[in-house]
Amino acid sequence: MQYHSKNASLNFHEAYQDFLSGRDTPTAYLDRCLETIKQREPEVKAWVYINEEQARIAAEQATKRYAENQPLSVIDGMPVGIKDIIETKDMPTQYGSAAYEGHTTNRDSAIVRALRDAGAIILGKTVTTAFALLDPGPTTNPYDSQRTPGGSSSGSAAAVAADMVPVTIGTQVIASVLRPSSYCGVWALKPTVGAFNRAEGLEFSQSHHGIHANSEIDLWHVATEVGLRMGGDPGYPGLYCERGYVPEPTKPVRLAVLQTEGWSRVDEAARQAFIDALAKLSDAGVVLVKRDEDPRIEGLEEAISSAIQVSLDITAWEHRWMVENLAETRPDAIGKFLMRHIENARSQTLEKYRANLKRRADARRKLKALEQSYDACITLSATGIAPIRSEIENTRFPTGDLSMSCPASLLGAPSYNVPALQLQGMPLGVQVLGQQDWDERTLGYARWIHECLTKDT
Amino acid sequence: MQYHSKNASLNFHEAYQDFLSGRDTPTAYLDRCLETIKQREPEVKAWVYINEEQARIAAEQATKRYAENQPLSVIDGMPVGIKDIIETKDMPTQYGSAAYEGHTTNRDSAIVRALRDAGAIILGKTVTTAFALLDPGPTTNPYDSQRTPGGSSSGSAAAVAADMVPVTIGTQVIASVLRPSSYCGVWALKPTVGAFNRAEGLEFSQSHHGIHANSEIDLWHVATEVGLRMGGDPGYPGLYCERGYVPEPTKPVRLAVLQTEGWSRVDEAARQAFIDALAKLSDAGVVLVKRDEDPRIEGLEEAISSAIQVSLDITAWEHRWMVENLAETRPDAIGKFLMRHIENARSQTLEKYRANLKRRADARRKLKALEQSYDACITLSATGIAPIRSEIENTRFPTGDLSMSCPASLLGAPSYNVPALQLQGMPLGVQVLGQQDWDERTLGYARWIHECLTKDT
Repeated sequence: MQYHSKNASLNFHEAYQDFLSGRDTPTAYLDRCLETIKQREPEVKAWVYINEEQARIAAEQATKRYAENQPLSVIDGMPVGIKDIIETKDMPTQYGSAAYEGHTTNRDSAIVRALRDAGAIILGKTVTTAFALLDPGPTTNPYDSQRTPGGSSSGSAAAVAADMVPVTIGTQVIASVLRPSSYCGVWALKPTVGAFNRAEGLEFSQSHHGIHANSEIDLWHVATEVGLRMGGDPGYPGLYCERGYVPEPTKPVRLAVLQTEGWSRVDEAARQAFIDALAKLSDAGVVLVKRDEDPRIEGLEEAISSAIQVSLDITAWEHRWMVENLAETRPDAIGKFLMRHIENARSQTLEKYRANLKRRADARRKLKALEQSYDACITLSATGIAPIRSEIENTRFPTGDLSMSCPASLLGAPSYNVPALQLQGMPLGVQVLGQQDWDERTLGYARWIHECLTKDT
Repeated sequence: MQYHSKNASLNFHEAYQDFLSGRDTPTAYLDRCLETIKQREPEVKAWVYINEEQARIAAEQATKRYAENQPLSVIDGMPVGIKDIIETKDMPTQYGSAAYEGHTTNRDSAIVRALRDAGAIILGKTVTTAFALLDPGPTTNPYDSQRTPGGSSSGSAAAVAADMVPVTIGTQVIASVLRPSSYCGVWALKPTVGAFNRAEGLEFSQSHHGIHANSEIDLWHVATEVGLRMGGDPGYPGLYCERGYVPEPTKPVRLAVLQTEGWSRVDEAARQAFIDALAKLSDAGVVLVKRDEDPRIEGLEEAISSAIQVSLDITAWEHRWMVENLAETRPDAIGKFLMRHIENARSQTLEKYRANLKRRADARRKLKALEQSYDACITLSATGIAPIRSEIENTRFPTGDLSMSCPASLLGAPSYNVPALQLQGMPLGVQVLGQQDWDERTLGYARWIHECLTKDT
């Protein structure tokens, strides 16, 4: 299947209207999802667990609510996939690791419970790289099975791209929501740091739950329905949003064009595609400003120039207590990248960690300094289209280059993957990154940019 | 046993010198602890689990290290008790709840691993109220078994007071380290928010690990040895300290005297004891300033005037995902106070939580505003001596009144219980509360205040 940015993809908000009018039901919608899964899953391998029986029961309950004109929310009856590092009470949570095979916790993470409270159907668990690090899982790219879907939210991005479900939940500490969404050509939100409650998964200070969707309207419906129910991480104000409101496409006045540390690693075709995209935006009247034209942008670029290393170091230090326990009890389950992670942590000191926190805080101040003059920042979500798996499996990044998606994590800024570009029949995402807590406003700009970049194609 | 603030209590730093010189060994020290436990535990009931066999092995290893003149740290061989809401790989973690009877996680929380890394002996798990809330456990006050030891770190405070171990680890979200330490007459530190890594226990934004000890030198040795090894919570700079340095008693120039919302509930005898203590400090030349003498202090007093309700509301909202899972799987295990907690959470909204976060941030700014003029704040750690259990078991606070210890939690400020006062043969603690990250400096003032208040007794 060749990628096209206007593929008629599975969305939910149109079906919702049909549920209300009685032309369609959540039960029939689920059946269509299951049929697609049946057809595509043998090749895509997006799922580690599917709870078909429970899903059917939940769909029938939703169907009944619509028949009584009493849906719980605009996502009532929506089948959703959950990345397999997020806990679910009725399915195993295996972290992509043999060490946790069959592991059950009998509890729902906050976002899973919030989804259920809104009527969503927790259909199954999607493939993650081991412990959301770099050791790849079995998932393939739905547009070319020789290519990677990206990671760590591999199955979440691929399941949506393959039209198996309209929405999935992923997580990002470094680049794990935006990059696979770029490779798979789906919308994604990596929200403001702390905006979504991670419940028990709080070991990392720059981890985020994220949302993958075919439709940005479905994405925002899920964001608001779970955001208002569950709140943010402890001590954070949570997602700023209003129930029932989706920002209209909004033309930005001025955008800061970011290169990030990944620019030198962007391949020629992707670079040209991005330059062409910027030309389209410019033609439409958007003012685009680069690092050499504004010292504030240059300041931000410098502050994020080691985003990957700073992020990896912060994360390794924060992760070490959990992984030391694992290394002790299940040394057989420690993959190559997890071992590197542990060795990094062991080599660090509290002083080094503090210095990295200061670098991160400085980078965040540099982004904040753009607030008065720029509506958002724009860059690519990846250094190119999804690489061929066999060509990267023994490299530093066996699920693809992290560099374009990492700054959003370090900055704690909301960032959207906008599935707007295509190369060789494969998708390439544009990234629209906003100020902290501007998740809603940034979506308006992202929607306009998507329209602008896809209208002639 | 009558309390006296100069009781010759079990300390470790003197034994450490004898270990080095060969006059004593960690094995013999542990034997003395176990002998005390054997004598006192039937009445005090401080422990839920004692791992005597493993402790003996660890003590022998420590003894061997001292014999080779290679102790791992100044706390090598120190027997320590761990509050039973903190995970230990070789013992159950039961949260004071029947729902978790025999529950094991096979992993060490960060502070337990850091203690082991420093050579400390994890002797056992100490009693907590159910889920560190208000439903009391079996522990009695070591100075009068009719009286409460306080909560929720009931066993941790009582075990130290009864000379069973020199140091224990507790936790405080509202008042759970300082208040039991006041009732039991032991030193305690509730550190700066985020200063001690809580590992998996991150559900609350104002939860803290704390330390109970007979000797403030032992307390600080443990604080620095674990603080430097484990760091703080994700995103926090961790405890500011230097290995091997214990601040000397330091006379404060000026102290802000805080009443807090608890003042009207302080009983007459405790009020008079505190007034007498302030007179001693004043006689020694310390300038004491109250709310009516400085509008900044009045501003802080107003900002903490609803500390308990704001803290309970914040905590209930943050806790609700965990407890909803529990309410679903083990409704039989939901005690009266946990049920109240859940009902509070269910009645809240994200907006209300945000408003409470703002109130907390405002209170922290009001404390910060005292920084230039005051070395520390001083108040009582409790509204009086430990109440008689049967008289409070059906009241709002069945482990004693929370009000004097709660402001330190809301403020995220380091606060010491200084075991300096006594009434009716029972202890009463003075609380010395400092600016965030001033844990070390504040100990110097607390030590001087302890000396000043106990020198004539």
